[in-house]
This record gives sequence, C-alpha cells and structure tokens, in this order.
Amino acid sequence: MTTGPRHRTRQQHDEIAHYLRTAIREGSFQPGDELPSEAELTRKFTSSRGPVRQAMSALRGEGLISSGRGRRTVVLDNVLTQSFDDVISFSQWCHASDIVPGQVTQRVAREPAEKSLAASLRIEEGDPIVSVFRLRLMDEAPAMVERLNYPFEFGRHVLAFDTDSGSIYQELIDQGVDINRASRTIDAVGANDDDARLLEVPVGTPLLRVRRRAFTTAGDVIESSDDRYLPWKASFTMNSTRGNPSSMSLISGD
Amino acid sequence: MTTGPRHRTRQQHDEIAHYLRTAIREGSFQPGDELPSEAELTRKFTSSRGPVRQAMSALRGEGLISSGRGRRTVVLDNVLTQSFDDVISFSQWCHASDIVPGQVTQRVAREPAEKSLAASLRIEEGDPIVSVFRLRLMDEAPAMVERLNYPFEFGRHVLAFDTDSGSIYQELIDQGVDINRASRTIDAVGANDDDARLLEVPVGTPLLRVRRRAFTTAGDVIESSDDRYLPWKASFTMNSTRGNPSSMSLISGD
Repeated sequence: MTTGPRHRTRQQHDEIAHYLRTAIREGSFQPGDELPSEAELTRKFTSSRGPVRQAMSALRGEGLISSGRGRRTVVLDNVLTQSFDDVISFSQWCHASDIVPGQVTQRVAREPAEKSLAASLRIEEGDPIVSVFRLRLMDEAPAMVERLNYPFEFGRHVLAFDTDSGSIYQELIDQGVDINRASRTIDAVGANDDDARLLEVPVGTPLLRVRRRAFTTAGDVIESSDDRYLPWKASFTMNSTRGNPSSMSLISGD
Repeated sequence: MTTGPRHRTRQQHDEIAHYLRTAIREGSFQPGDELPSEAELTRKFTSSRGPVRQAMSALRGEGLISSGRGRRTVVLDNVLTQSFDDVISFSQWCHASDIVPGQVTQRVAREPAEKSLAASLRIEEGDPIVSVFRLRLMDEAPAMVERLNYPFEFGRHVLAFDTDSGSIYQELIDQGVDINRASRTIDAVGANDDDARLLEVPVGTPLLRVRRRAFTTAGDVIESSDDRYLPWKASFTMNSTRGNPSSMSLISGD
C-alpha cells in the first residue's frame, strides 16, 4: 500500500472532485450557481490549494464548470447529459456516477414470447426469447430490479454469459451486436411481490419505472426491458431552454 | 351547423390525423415502424383516399413521418420532442396533445417562505412567496396535483389572476415575465392525503412526480413547483442514439 504525501494529495483531489461532481449532478449546485471559492474548499477539506485546483481542473475538463478566470467559477448550463452507454447500461451509468454496480441474478431463461412481449420485440408470439431477471445493487445496497428480454438471435449471447459477473450490455457489444438507438418511457409503479422482496420494501412502494427498447441501425429490436428503481436511489433530471424543443416528451396515457 | 361532404371530409381528415398522431406519441407506432397503408386507413375510417392523404400530409408537415415516396410511410426518429411552452405549461401541453385541460384551485396564498423553499427560490427564509395548489384535469378527469411557488416579485401577478381560468404560465408571459429556461427532476412518490383525496385514489398510490424550477435569462428563479401525475394519465418518453449524449440524465439519489 502506498503512503506518503504524494498518495495523500491524489486522494484529496479525487475526493474534492467527487464531492463537486455529485453536488452538481444532484442539483445542489444548479447551472448558473457559483461554486464555493478555493479558500472555502481548502477549509472544508483541510487541504492545500493544489488538490482544490486539480479538482477544479478535472471538472473543467468534463465541461461541468466555467473557466472562471478572474471571477468565481460557475456551474455551466445543460451540464446534465448522459452518454448513450449510460442510457442502456446500469453498470456503465454507475461507473460514470462513481458508484460500484452489482447484480444478483434471479433467473435466466430461454422461453416462448408471450403476446405483448412478442409485439414489443417485433417477433411472432411463441418465438424463443431469452429473459433475465436481476436485482441490481448500488454500492452493495439494493437499488433496482431489472427484467430484460431479448429475441433469441441476440439473447443467445446472454445464455453463454455469467449474468452475475457484470454488464450484459458490454457482453453484447463485445459479441458484435449493433446497438444503435434506444427509446425510454418513464413512469411510476407500485412494487409487486418480487420487487418488494428484492428491494426490501413493502409491496406497493412507489418505484420509478423505466421501460426501454433498444434497436440496431437497421431497426431490429434487440431488447425490451423494464427497470424499477427505488426513487431515493435514482431520479431523472434535464434542462430545457426557450427556443430548444426538449428531446424528452411528457405523453398522455391511454 | 355546417353539413354536407365538405364538412364531412374535413372531420375525417382531422380524425385520421389525430389517430395517427396519438399512436405515434404514445409509442404504438415506434420510430422506424411503417404506418398502415392508405388502403388500410381508408378501410379503418370508411373514408376515401382524399382525407387519408390530407392526414398524412399534415403529419409529414409536423415532421412525424417520412415522405414515403415509392414505399410505405415510416415513423421518423426522434419525433418525440416537446416545446419549451409544453415543458412549463400543463395547459399548453394538453392543447398540443388534443386534450382539454382544466383546473380546480384549492388554495392561493401569500406567505413567508420556509427554509428549503427559500433555498430553491434563492431568496431568504421568511421572504414573501405566492403559492398555488391546484387539481389539474385532463378531459374533465382528475390527472395531476400541482403545487407552484413563486417569489413575490413574480407571484404578485398570480395573486391578481383568476387561477380557475387557465394557464398561469400564459399570464406570466402576458405580464412580461422573462421565462427563459427550466430544470426538471422526475421520480416517483406515494400519494399523500391531499393527493389521494383530489386524484380519487388510495393514499400511497404511486404517482409520477415532476419537480421544476424556471429561470429568467439572468438566472433568477421564477418558480419552484411539484407536479404529481397519475401514472396512467402521463409518462415521459425519449429516444437516444449512439454518439449523441442524451439531454436527460438519470442521477443517483442521496
């Protein structure tokens, strides 16, 4: 294990950057807000100016904050973006958020598609699919229940994969599956028996539900999934500006 | 009342366009999906080709579908956009979705800001705010409970407005308030006593919660609100494509 000043400095720089990144992501510092001054941050982290400046430099590089030359540093507008990988992959999203992802597989099956799932995957009722049911963890705590469904053409890669070992998305990419776009629908749903047991909450607890379909460039459906988050573990956020149509739509129910 | 073929044709064209628009918005037809053929639509609506072509032309003009020259018409990618007006205004969003909006005001008050609201509005604790609590209706049925809070500087316009008459957003615009951008955070929450009574559901029913802050161009906070939708009345949807960072982010909780 490395010790000494060099290591200590590195730790502090990461710690300060993580604190600021999280505060911005979670909205404690909103676009336009001034960040705490160098002096305030050195006091808060009992640090010298070096690590504070290193942390600010990292955030500047990530496009989160202004260059701040001659005045206080400001949180930039529209900083809340999510890469395509993060849209599809819980594991990748966690890594980007400084969270350790985990998974406990409940069930992996090859089975015939029931009617509504077949329609969503654009295959025939009864055609084979691969379905995966996993509890997902954030920093070792239950956070989300995921139900993934793949037409056999894509799902066969999943059958050969240890679903307790990590990202199915990464495995599909590694197997050459062309994941090009995705649609997401977000609403709220009460925890059913399985959700409640795995997430360790009462049945009926409000969960944030994200249903996702992923497509190849040619428009074939790769995946139809249902993710249910504990709402205190994750929420969606976005900024909109006059003159820019928002790429997220509120749509009316049936 | 006008009757005769001219009127009948007009009605059918609108009806067909409304059917297709709604099916696309609600995801029954996804990007890349082919629309029903002209022949299928004429059968479905017992229509001649004229109104079907008029409807398709309208949707083409709205950027929802491909030009379809020589082949079937296809739903376009990234069609799910929402104008800035729709982001802020439930009334405007309803109008854009062919829904009649309504409201039943529960309470309008001038009162001192409590601590967390003051922080969100960037004013001092105890400074005066105007708060509005309304039940919102979609086609006359309960759909959403809204809690709006304004610093007095902006809220004074609301005090003078009949909040049962329609859009507060429109009134603020008419009064010259510079509403330039907004941030939204989306999660799930159980109905509290007030929500449950107004929405006519049991306490604890999962609701889709949208918390919004609106800003002037200069960065002043105009509004801090909390909207709670019955999830079968509204959901969020968006498309993402590889290579484009998504403007909506899933963020981790505290």
